[in-house]
Amino acid sequence: MSHLSPELCALSAQLARTAVDAALVAGDLLRRNFGEPVVVSEEKTYDLKIETDKRCQDLISRTILADFPDHRILGEEGQEGSPTGTIEWIVDPLDGTVNFTYGIPHFCTSIAARYEGQTLVGVIYDPIRQELFTVEGNRSPRLNGKPITSSGRARLSESICVVGFSRSRAGIDQGLRLVQYLVPRVRKVRLTGSAALDLAYVASGRIDAYLEQEIHLWDIAAGVLLLQSAGGTIHQFPNAGSDTFRVTATNGVLDLSGLRLEE
Amino acid sequence: MSHLSPELCALSAQLARTAVDAALVAGDLLRRNFGEPVVVSEEKTYDLKIETDKRCQDLISRTILADFPDHRILGEEGQEGSPTGTIEWIVDPLDGTVNFTYGIPHFCTSIAARYEGQTLVGVIYDPIRQELFTVEGNRSPRLNGKPITSSGRARLSESICVVGFSRSRAGIDQGLRLVQYLVPRVRKVRLTGSAALDLAYVASGRIDAYLEQEIHLWDIAAGVLLLQSAGGTIHQFPNAGSDTFRVTATNGVLDLSGLRLEE
Repeated sequence: MSHLSPELCALSAQLARTAVDAALVAGDLLRRNFGEPVVVSEEKTYDLKIETDKRCQDLISRTILADFPDHRILGEEGQEGSPTGTIEWIVDPLDGTVNFTYGIPHFCTSIAARYEGQTLVGVIYDPIRQELFTVEGNRSPRLNGKPITSSGRARLSESICVVGFSRSRAGIDQGLRLVQYLVPRVRKVRLTGSAALDLAYVASGRIDAYLEQEIHLWDIAAGVLLLQSAGGTIHQFPNAGSDTFRVTATNGVLDLSGLRLEE
Repeated sequence: MSHLSPELCALSAQLARTAVDAALVAGDLLRRNFGEPVVVSEEKTYDLKIETDKRCQDLISRTILADFPDHRILGEEGQEGSPTGTIEWIVDPLDGTVNFTYGIPHFCTSIAARYEGQTLVGVIYDPIRQELFTVEGNRSPRLNGKPITSSGRARLSESICVVGFSRSRAGIDQGLRLVQYLVPRVRKVRLTGSAALDLAYVASGRIDAYLEQEIHLWDIAAGVLLLQSAGGTIHQFPNAGSDTFRVTATNGVLDLSGLRLEE
């Protein structure tokens, strides 16, 4: 847990209120559009972009800038707001775009707010199950208002691990190596399609580790604060020549020493 | 789509009404107990049994036998009802037990009814997202009352495939081979932890294939009818010396010829 000054705690509370508003309006849009025909604006081998992403981002930006017109917003869909703002919002309007597009009801909105590089607020909202994960200032992280902590499972054989599959050939190969290592050793491996929910699930003790080779800041900014405040541990390594990270997130006690993640 | 006689259609409607009642009462119990401490009654390397399974099975059996005292019920938790009944219910009270136990909100109740070996009714209920998949008699299959069909995606590169991981070493090895083959070739691979929901998702066009090496009848009985009625295809091969099946379920058009599933 971070120990913020009273001023930063007060600021966090203000930012959190707006972050929750923004996540709920975006989630409402996603819920209403889920299962309807989707307009795909960009198609890649292992990924999609859809118009709903952009509409959600617009809704979130409008909600934030109505409260804080001088803030900066960084999202998967680009930058908005004041380029010189000291407070920066990091937004993934729809994390799990492929799931949403195919009709798999597992996706979320992720919103974080940072002051001088320090994350003060993280909100992750699953609009289908109506699960709202929040963390702000010095308060304990919550799921629908109820405090959460990461699990205490230390043994790999009792754990559930999630592997995120990246879009590059090297990332895919490394992901396959991870799955191959983990499947016989853990209770279950899951592949889910939403990095932000994966982090929220480690933070709430539902899964024990989340491993991914290439992830963007907006996918994890809220989840990292949520997880750290919930007792978990996250290691982020920037990938050379890219704006992505390699991430190992655990409940803080799981023994992954056999993995040799540094290789 | 099967073409049943008017008599069997009338019987199907009666059975379906009871099946839905039973799934909803079981789902209500699961939802109320989800996230609460779980009593584990049996622990295996890759699997768990919990008391909630048994309580759900009891609720379902009571609901069925109140309407049809002379029917037979076959479930993961054993046999009940009349051993000579011509109508047999096949029940999985909680499919996705490990998910439920760890707090992952992805599990369901699966109920099928068979007359002289022919499945007349299938109901799968996800109590967290409140999604009720139903099929009965000659009617088209439905999700919350709305007709569903499997997807039309034929190309592997556009597909989402789910692999089920079995509990034996041979099943795990074969599952890993499947994942290794599919990950670079499909849009996404998912590992979810509920076979019945996987089949319901293929039936509703959310995913395109579901492959599993060792599955029990109660995991798939409802899903098979749902999927076949929705335009999908399922191949079931009994595993020698076991009461499990190898299953390949697809939307009916996906090209899996490269898989060499028979090897």
